[in-house]
Amino acid sequence: LFKMSGEPDHKRAKTGHDEFVHLFDPLSEEVIALVQHEDMPEEAIGYIRKLCTYTVPGGKMNRGRTVLDALRKLRGDRGVNADEAKLANILGWCVEWLQAFFLVADDLMDNSVTRRGNPCWYKLDDVGLIAVNDALLLESLMYMIIKTHFRSHPAYVDILDVFHETTFRTELGQLLDLTSEKAAKKGGKLDFSLFTEDTHRRIVTYKTAFYTFYLPVACALILDGEKRQEVFKQAREISILMGIYFQVQDDFLDCYGAPEVIGKIGTDIQDFKCSWLAVKCLQLATPQQRAIFEANYGRDSDDAVAAVKKLYGELDLTKHFETFEEDSHKKLQDLIAKVTLINPDVYKDLLAKIFKRKH
Amino acid sequence: LFKMSGEPDHKRAKTGHDEFVHLFDPLSEEVIALVQHEDMPEEAIGYIRKLCTYTVPGGKMNRGRTVLDALRKLRGDRGVNADEAKLANILGWCVEWLQAFFLVADDLMDNSVTRRGNPCWYKLDDVGLIAVNDALLLESLMYMIIKTHFRSHPAYVDILDVFHETTFRTELGQLLDLTSEKAAKKGGKLDFSLFTEDTHRRIVTYKTAFYTFYLPVACALILDGEKRQEVFKQAREISILMGIYFQVQDDFLDCYGAPEVIGKIGTDIQDFKCSWLAVKCLQLATPQQRAIFEANYGRDSDDAVAAVKKLYGELDLTKHFETFEEDSHKKLQDLIAKVTLINPDVYKDLLAKIFKRKH
Ligand SMILES: [Mg+2]
Ligand SMILES: [Mg+2]
Ligand SMILES: [Mg+2]
Ligand SMILES: [Mg+2]
Ligand SMILES: [Mg+2]
Ligand SMILES: [Mg+2]
Repeated sequence: LFKMSGEPDHKRAKTGHDEFVHLFDPLSEEVIALVQHEDMPEEAIGYIRKLCTYTVPGGKMNRGRTVLDALRKLRGDRGVNADEAKLANILGWCVEWLQAFFLVADDLMDNSVTRRGNPCWYKLDDVGLIAVNDALLLESLMYMIIKTHFRSHPAYVDILDVFHETTFRTELGQLLDLTSEKAAKKGGKLDFSLFTEDTHRRIVTYKTAFYTFYLPVACALILDGEKRQEVFKQAREISILMGIYFQVQDDFLDCYGAPEVIGKIGTDIQDFKCSWLAVKCLQLATPQQRAIFEANYGRDSDDAVAAVKKLYGELDLTKHFETFEEDSHKKLQDLIAKVTLINPDVYKDLLAKIFKRKH
Repeated sequence: LFKMSGEPDHKRAKTGHDEFVHLFDPLSEEVIALVQHEDMPEEAIGYIRKLCTYTVPGGKMNRGRTVLDALRKLRGDRGVNADEAKLANILGWCVEWLQAFFLVADDLMDNSVTRRGNPCWYKLDDVGLIAVNDALLLESLMYMIIKTHFRSHPAYVDILDVFHETTFRTELGQLLDLTSEKAAKKGGKLDFSLFTEDTHRRIVTYKTAFYTFYLPVACALILDGEKRQEVFKQAREISILMGIYFQVQDDFLDCYGAPEVIGKIGTDIQDFKCSWLAVKCLQLATPQQRAIFEANYGRDSDDAVAAVKKLYGELDLTKHFETFEEDSHKKLQDLIAKVTLINPDVYKDLLAKIFKRKH
């Protein structure tokens, strides 16, 4: 039913990952029961059921699984009992719910076509711009799930704070991502001077790294009762570097990934995104090649997209990406070896899951 | 600078309302400082500053002012000291921030043109669909303000819960509002059987009453240290009835309000909204009149809108509205007289502010 990444299915089952997947149905029933408890007609209940089923599961679910995986590593010999494991998986699903909220809104703003192998939610017949409110509902339902399970938990406030902060930072990243297009297109003229490694690093740190790597690990730390600010700071630093690496892969796959494997059709070139490939291309291009890039990037035509892809080929960006991937992997391993306040296995695992990922 | 409603300006100044208005600048500077504390370029900071200034102030601010007004009434002789008054006004501004978040998203989904006398935020040149993320940012900034001022306050968790729940219920109302259009338009055929008083009451209870009346009063109760569930329940019941009355006024003004006074151009007829006027029209129409309504409602043409408005005139809906307004006012006064757990002045004040409002 769900696509996994990294490990084969039988291994996942052994390490308890099936429990994660099987938690989705009861959680979504719980959400539906909450809506039924309000004065809502059948059609609205059915709509919300479809919204959750369509947009929340079906991804790789690495983020969601990371909460319990990380908690186990943090605990080591002390272990994680069944109740704690369930709470960790519930928070894991909340991370997935949060991501569904982001993706529904992101696909609408990016004018994307497919997601996880299906039409984007906003593309469905009965949806359209209502998707804006649907994204908001996904976020609210997430807070309702957290309230149901954590209202009397000592970590309730810390959990709410970390979800609020992560949401805020992700939205700042989306703002940078969306306004970088506009800035470069200002006044009818294209200005690529902002397409730098620095701009790129800033965008991806905010739009991807916080919610993808910091949030699940921070949830595990909170559940483990961690209170030291310096521990969260260390988690944040390494999460950011891992997130940059992960988003460069995403930028690469947007152009070179097989749509049937990544589940979506890339639109970064048409959307004028400050992607890693565009930044690299501008670093390496001759003045003639730069002119080709500038004449074609950000145009919604097959010919223009083909011209940009041809240029990427001439500059051998695939090779540059592979070098980047090997270098980053090495740097991250070195960094993980130096982690002192958190069991380094937390990050070794995460890195193994994403190294050379194909989707 | 800001439009007030109900009382004249000099009276507001005396009762401390200016303090509310003057709190906006420091709060928005605080928000900007938060963003500056992140790794954000100057353009992004300027963008967020403009977003807040453009979308948060400038409304009637009744909701925001209600928190302190209600707290004073709840306290009676015990009084409210300066620190408590400031905290109440901060929460009041958070209600206004929440409303800005809803309105930015609502105007985009409703394809509206103006708001508070200016073009809607999403209509601005550099905005468009980025408004989706901007709405989300307004929501996040609100939680950051709450955190800054209430993180160590004993009511922090209750405040977060009531904002989450109110947001959730408002989004349910928006879902009903948006899908009622779609439901009636199903399969190319128009179906007005769902345009009933019951449907209307349900939509407006959720989309308007909770955040407009329940939230500010609940904030005051929380700040007053109220813990009894039955008190919140009573606040909720009366808020809902007041909210229905308020939204019927809004539906009426959408058609009959002067755009220069209400600050927006109504689009309910074009948008196929299940408004109070549409429900009333269908209740009163002869079969011939019903046919005219069905042929013209929900069409984006000046002629169709004029035909519907002509029909409203023939049915004397203005008179029916005036009767509804007098009846509701009487019923609400009776109800307020029976309130036992909350100082009835809280609601008498609110009712006085909205009775026969023109915007
Ligand atoms: Mg996208
Ligand atoms: Mg995007
Ligand atoms: Mg991408
Ligand atoms: Mg609306
Ligand atoms: Mg509207
Ligand atoms: Mg209206």
